Amino acid sequence: MIMEITPFLNRELSEPLYSQLYHWIKKEIEEGRLLHGMKMPSIRQLATHLKVSRNTVVTAYQQLESEGYLESVPKSGIWVAEIEKAALHPMEKVIPVRQEWKSSNETLINFEYGNIDLEKFPLKLWKKCISDVVSQNNNWLFEYGEKQGEFSLRQEISKYLLQSRGVHCTPEQIIITSGTQNSISLICHLLNLQQEKVAIEEPGYNGVRNVFENEGCHMEPVPLEKDGLSLEHVHLSKAKAVYITPSHQFPFGMILSISKRIKLLNWAYQTGGYIIEDDYDSEFRYKGQPIPSLKSLDEEERVIYLGTFSKSFLPSIRLSYMVLPPSLLDQYTQNFRNYNQSASPIIQRAMALFMESGEFERHIRRMRKKYQRKHQTLIKSIEQNMGSKVRIIGEDAGLHILLKLNTVSCFELIETALQKGVQVHSPLKFWLHPTSESHPYIMLGFGGLSIEEIEKGIQLLASCLP
Amino acid sequence: MIMEITPFLNRELSEPLYSQLYHWIKKEIEEGRLLHGMKMPSIRQLATHLKVSRNTVVTAYQQLESEGYLESVPKSGIWVAEIEKAALHPMEKVIPVRQEWKSSNETLINFEYGNIDLEKFPLKLWKKCISDVVSQNNNWLFEYGEKQGEFSLRQEISKYLLQSRGVHCTPEQIIITSGTQNSISLICHLLNLQQEKVAIEEPGYNGVRNVFENEGCHMEPVPLEKDGLSLEHVHLSKAKAVYITPSHQFPFGMILSISKRIKLLNWAYQTGGYIIEDDYDSEFRYKGQPIPSLKSLDEEERVIYLGTFSKSFLPSIRLSYMVLPPSLLDQYTQNFRNYNQSASPIIQRAMALFMESGEFERHIRRMRKKYQRKHQTLIKSIEQNMGSKVRIIGEDAGLHILLKLNTVSCFELIETALQKGVQVHSPLKFWLHPTSESHPYIMLGFGGLSIEEIEKGIQLLASCLP
Repeated sequence: MIMEITPFLNRELSEPLYSQLYHWIKKEIEEGRLLHGMKMPSIRQLATHLKVSRNTVVTAYQQLESEGYLESVPKSGIWVAEIEKAALHPMEKVIPVRQEWKSSNETLINFEYGNIDLEKFPLKLWKKCISDVVSQNNNWLFEYGEKQGEFSLRQEISKYLLQSRGVHCTPEQIIITSGTQNSISLICHLLNLQQEKVAIEEPGYNGVRNVFENEGCHMEPVPLEKDGLSLEHVHLSKAKAVYITPSHQFPFGMILSISKRIKLLNWAYQTGGYIIEDDYDSEFRYKGQPIPSLKSLDEEERVIYLGTFSKSFLPSIRLSYMVLPPSLLDQYTQNFRNYNQSASPIIQRAMALFMESGEFERHIRRMRKKYQRKHQTLIKSIEQNMGSKVRIIGEDAGLHILLKLNTVSCFELIETALQKGVQVHSPLKFWLHPTSESHPYIMLGFGGLSIEEIEKGIQLLASCLP
Repeated sequence: MIMEITPFLNRELSEPLYSQLYHWIKKEIEEGRLLHGMKMPSIRQLATHLKVSRNTVVTAYQQLESEGYLESVPKSGIWVAEIEKAALHPMEKVIPVRQEWKSSNETLINFEYGNIDLEKFPLKLWKKCISDVVSQNNNWLFEYGEKQGEFSLRQEISKYLLQSRGVHCTPEQIIITSGTQNSISLICHLLNLQQEKVAIEEPGYNGVRNVFENEGCHMEPVPLEKDGLSLEHVHLSKAKAVYITPSHQFPFGMILSISKRIKLLNWAYQTGGYIIEDDYDSEFRYKGQPIPSLKSLDEEERVIYLGTFSKSFLPSIRLSYMVLPPSLLDQYTQNFRNYNQSASPIIQRAMALFMESGEFERHIRRMRKKYQRKHQTLIKSIEQNMGSKVRIIGEDAGLHILLKLNTVSCFELIETALQKGVQVHSPLKFWLHPTSESHPYIMLGFGGLSIEEIEKGIQLLASCLP
């Protein structure tokens, strides 16, 4: 007999689909619902039935075969094998509910935010940098590394920040971290923000909000205006610190005006509050004059500046940094005296070498051009294909834009687009308190897509708009 | 004129000595205390005067020359150059007080704890693993990586833990972290330990205590008995969680007896408390039967198991992991839904590849033998050279021992040993509340020293004992 099998495959999980399928079938066999001598659906049948690629089924079947759960009989098909109960490994009995998250890779075109361009990446040189540092006089390889991060990397960052962002700082003010979330967590302990009010942008970056919440901070969402954060609400919030993305508000994309920058600094000077300036993608600006960073305007040591290599270089190196005002260094030393650095010195030193070579700046210049072309293509495609059905938001910088939908809800569009092989996402999760006003948006990240994918994707998306 | 210059160089700082020297001279020039036309001391003179290596001076001088602060005139010497005030960079004016820590590398023999053996390290294969993963199909390189850590690494860890520690777990229960301190911080948020009592060993690992304190936990120090933690005091503490190093108590080295393990588990079953089992160096045991890990004995999902690659492989990869009971996975997902993984997928995948190759287990076997020889040498040298002047503590496992001093205080010994070129350390910082009982110890880490260095170091140390 051939049976119909219907595992529940969840594309939101981190576990690959083939692995979910593998685990499901294995469990069915182990728990006696699929029995020796039953014939499995063919690869094509199962792939069609589950709406997954044939590869997914092939990989799962192969794994099950190699472990003796299935038997492939040439010209006959794939059958459930005979298994001995005793052979089952005890650990297999406690498979917990899977609790991981990651978006599926099986969609045709995914406008997911966070991916970056891989085509022109200087992989060879980056590999050489890693290889070179591991070959160096290796004593450091056998140690934990400097607590604030490798000095050579901090030196390079301090040069880079002065040149690119007008931020004056010495290597001693820089703390290397293993991601912006790590930076935020350290800041919470440094400024004693537990049980304190922290003003955040509404909507804003949920990854950072999640950290503040876990650290016990009280979130004070501050609405956005055309030129950024509402200063009135910052004053009303009585916050001890403000977290802000002034160069390119995440996710709305507006730039905090110079007058608001001055006002925000004055708020900090007057109240003794701190400004946490997250400059996550300031490298990629396509229009207008760059506005000085808050840090570069700060005259009373109230700004903590955050940067990351995730956008400008590689997310997978997990390398970010923060610049502390000198007046906070004593406290930092005191609070984290026994903390080891959490980013690997191997990666840090390779990055320092890469920056020293001058290639980092060339890379950024190349990427800026490349992203600018993608960005132009995206905007043009949207204007041509969607016209007045949408409004484009936040188009001056960065690796994403928002679309405001005039004719359809985001959920409908996401659903119908998916059927056509285009994955788009709602920015809803970036609101702390979503209202009906938060609904008519979708977010388009374009960093990891090619020009052709962007054009095709927007055409397909447009065909979903009523 | 030749002048005498006497910068204060601090070997305790993270900043290299050459860099401190460089900054000091630069500042002297900028602030007009070293003037154009003054002759600098020769490299040899300054090195002797400051008791640093000639390299240190050469590097500092070269840097100053390349920046135009000094001029080297062949057959004449090194002179302070003429500088224009305007050329001085504004950022140089705000050099903050240096606030970093690291032990100096300039001591002859340093019995610092935490270093590992570098002689037989399979560097070539490790380099190949890194190089291979970066060359792989590279899409993952342009993404943030799986939130719990790369699946391939978690699979390898789950196999390894079953084989080496009898710990049954699936990859889904494993969370990769960027160090044990990162694990502890996550656990605090997972178990809501803020403002709660946490029982810790007294003395115990200060790096972990520092995290608990920053997270707002109330520390309940529990005294140690011959066979480990005092269970009575655990009960009295009313703690919500216990942090413990049962395989090899840090720093005293005793092993938690099997009967105490059962009792501790029963404490957790009865009170609903959690046991945080830090198995940081269980790979290196030299005597006696291995005792099952608490995790492997746990029948009611009360143990969170922590492991690290810092001792068994390389501290500089900054890779640790924790194993959660299935019942905590839901909560973990909920609390950290927006957290990115903090360890680099590059390092994670290279480690997975290294483990898959079988080389990791071979490496551990080799290291165990090597450390055992060092350990034997250390014990023998102490017995021969120090006799009844000291008592050896914690000699069954690990990469360090303690010496109890019978004839001298640890501070005197540290001071006189340093003059003979041997650096030893007091374990005083591991006590939350040090008493006079905490004083007569020194800690000897031997992982990073050669057999010869151990012998020489102990001889020198013995010569300091009255």
